[in-house]
Amino acid sequence: MRMYDIIKKKRDGGELSTEEIEFFVEGYTKGEIPDYQASAMTMAVFFQGMTPRETTDLTLAMARSGDMLDLSVLGDKTVDKHSTGGVGDKVTLVVAPIAAALGCTVAKMSGRGLGHTGGTVDKLESIPGFKVELGADEFFSQVKDIGISVIGQSSNLTPADKKLYALRDVTASVESLPLIASSIISKKLAGGSQHIVLDVTCGSGAFMKTPEAAEELAKAMVEIGNMAGRHMTAVITNMDTPLGINIGNILEVKEAIEVLLGGGPSDLRYVCTEIASYMYASCFDCSADEARPKVLEAISSGAAFQKLRAMVGAQGGDVRYIDDPSLFESSKYSYEIKCPEDGYITSMNAETIGIASVVLGAGRATLEDSIDYKAGISLIKKTGDRVNAGDTIAILYTDDESKIPEARDMILGCMKLSLTEPEEETLIYKVIK
Amino acid sequence: MRMYDIIKKKRDGGELSTEEIEFFVEGYTKGEIPDYQASAMTMAVFFQGMTPRETTDLTLAMARSGDMLDLSVLGDKTVDKHSTGGVGDKVTLVVAPIAAALGCTVAKMSGRGLGHTGGTVDKLESIPGFKVELGADEFFSQVKDIGISVIGQSSNLTPADKKLYALRDVTASVESLPLIASSIISKKLAGGSQHIVLDVTCGSGAFMKTPEAAEELAKAMVEIGNMAGRHMTAVITNMDTPLGINIGNILEVKEAIEVLLGGGPSDLRYVCTEIASYMYASCFDCSADEARPKVLEAISSGAAFQKLRAMVGAQGGDVRYIDDPSLFESSKYSYEIKCPEDGYITSMNAETIGIASVVLGAGRATLEDSIDYKAGISLIKKTGDRVNAGDTIAILYTDDESKIPEARDMILGCMKLSLTEPEEETLIYKVIK
Repeated sequence: MRMYDIIKKKRDGGELSTEEIEFFVEGYTKGEIPDYQASAMTMAVFFQGMTPRETTDLTLAMARSGDMLDLSVLGDKTVDKHSTGGVGDKVTLVVAPIAAALGCTVAKMSGRGLGHTGGTVDKLESIPGFKVELGADEFFSQVKDIGISVIGQSSNLTPADKKLYALRDVTASVESLPLIASSIISKKLAGGSQHIVLDVTCGSGAFMKTPEAAEELAKAMVEIGNMAGRHMTAVITNMDTPLGINIGNILEVKEAIEVLLGGGPSDLRYVCTEIASYMYASCFDCSADEARPKVLEAISSGAAFQKLRAMVGAQGGDVRYIDDPSLFESSKYSYEIKCPEDGYITSMNAETIGIASVVLGAGRATLEDSIDYKAGISLIKKTGDRVNAGDTIAILYTDDESKIPEARDMILGCMKLSLTEPEEETLIYKVIK
Repeated sequence: MRMYDIIKKKRDGGELSTEEIEFFVEGYTKGEIPDYQASAMTMAVFFQGMTPRETTDLTLAMARSGDMLDLSVLGDKTVDKHSTGGVGDKVTLVVAPIAAALGCTVAKMSGRGLGHTGGTVDKLESIPGFKVELGADEFFSQVKDIGISVIGQSSNLTPADKKLYALRDVTASVESLPLIASSIISKKLAGGSQHIVLDVTCGSGAFMKTPEAAEELAKAMVEIGNMAGRHMTAVITNMDTPLGINIGNILEVKEAIEVLLGGGPSDLRYVCTEIASYMYASCFDCSADEARPKVLEAISSGAAFQKLRAMVGAQGGDVRYIDDPSLFESSKYSYEIKCPEDGYITSMNAETIGIASVVLGAGRATLEDSIDYKAGISLIKKTGDRVNAGDTIAILYTDDESKIPEARDMILGCMKLSLTEPEEETLIYKVIK
């Protein structure tokens, strides 16, 4: 078998065999196939696409390229949740404890933030003492004990995907549906959970800009996951506007705690309730309508909050911060952005707001950057809100006062005002199984 | 400017600017742009194509990536000729002396053979003593003296094309019209001649398999060359059957001499007459019909033969071999292939016959292989000929007797016989200016 022939076959619209796809993924991971052939291949895939069978083979081959977690000892209710990226997206912090409180098994790896989107692992690390790196024994025994653990991704998770993604990123072949879908799902398959709920975001803060594009990706991912024998659900959510009020690590942990205590912003509460319901529904083979009352009960009873607290305690975190979030350290500077005129906020660009939070120190521009956990933005007013000139529309938090003007201008620049009240935004477009 | 953006623009069907194309070619030649970006780029070009303007810019950038010969001191009748590759293609050995004999200036670089196609430089080197590497002073002074010199390509001729072609060759992006056209024409532009006649071959022994594909390539090359200010003519010729009778270096030199002496096989005589006529017509701005009698006169007067003899002498070759080709050394073994049955030869595969000649030692499988100048094949019978069982249809020449069965089987296997006389083959399909 020669890589040249595999590239040519795909270039000319052929369907690659399982063996050909495995040859490519294994050879590339080992460095036997050079970057220049892999990039010609991914560009050919960009133009010619892949059948669901090919995409599944690619996903499985990438999943198997590194460590595969075997969670079978934890039973048949292991559930994972993945978001395709958002701003202010603290959903995992809320839904993982809810699912665990309801008897699902959450043995989950999460990622770090990069660019305008945050990462669950960074948020958890903003809790003093919290450890995201556990040994396999610790991880399994914690999950057996309390039904939940969220840790960082193992360094040998899907090395094929890591290498291929880095290559696609510099050769303009990221935007290919089978390549995006296989990249995401390979990590989920390696993660080992039987039930996988995908939060497929769309809009200005998401990778997919329209609900239609998100739906196409969701369908592809659900199809691959099902072909690989997992129970898949994809929820297509709106990421035109950041989710909830807070953007920034400690700020988001605080907001997640509010939701687990029955409060918090209504958009965040709604999305978390739905996603937690689909996680439960998948594990217990029932409808989301049957799951929803249980989810609400897990919140109102405090069971979900106690799961978060138990996980933080088990992973070395200081639970006093969970019990009293006012203990979290605050930024040196806070700055209130005032509204320049009267009207309704008709739109804001979530990506720009995400980047503004990075400017303030809340995120990373490159993987080497360090994060200021305290920094971030509170959006006092959001799309759909009525505002008057002089109202505070957002509060910026940072230790670097010099960054405030830039972040302020970005936020003011990306908000649109109108005298007409906009239609209410749809938060969940569709659910695909 | 970033290579990523240039790849993405082409991937999405955009037209690259002159600056973007120069950035790519210069950066890649210098090694500043990595192979994996260049291969993604060429694959994107494979799918999206290039406008004539982009192709011309690419061609010029590649031509300028290395040495550019300035032939202006040699006047305005400098003429180059290029074949897109054939089997038994000794046309340059015939037409270059004819053109020089008629007052055209032939200051030409030629290539070596690889795979099933031969190269003029190898054929010239089969003449004892002939030097294909001349210093610039020697080269120019010889052309000023006798109007003709054919040398090997300088090592720094279009390094961008050399690097890019090698990459395309292993990443399945060779078969792209703008990339093929720019690769060929960049070398011709760097060669410096004002008049360029292209022999665009088509059929089983050629890169382009149909006259239509060859015409498309011819048009693209003529357009680029014209845009770059050169006088272009493309002659689309048949390469379904090897040209002439002989394949192999010394064998082809002998056959070229026969044609220059007014003999030789009629197909070769015809194609050489036409191509020489277009070379003259371009230089002297007349029609091919006006040029043809002069070409025939250059042969019948012996002037063309004397030009070959003068060039061989000037470049250190032993002219006794030109005067008496029987002096050329012969292979140790010759083997007559007999026809297995009666009928007409309706087709033969020129590529297979070319490969059979490589098997016998006449060519190279890789650039490092050495050549046996004596080895080759004489096709006693060709497509269209009536044959009887037991007739000799071809003679194999080699020093390695063990190779004879393989070469014989290849030749017998690629010849088709029929009881019906086939239609006469067209030798020249079209001329494009």
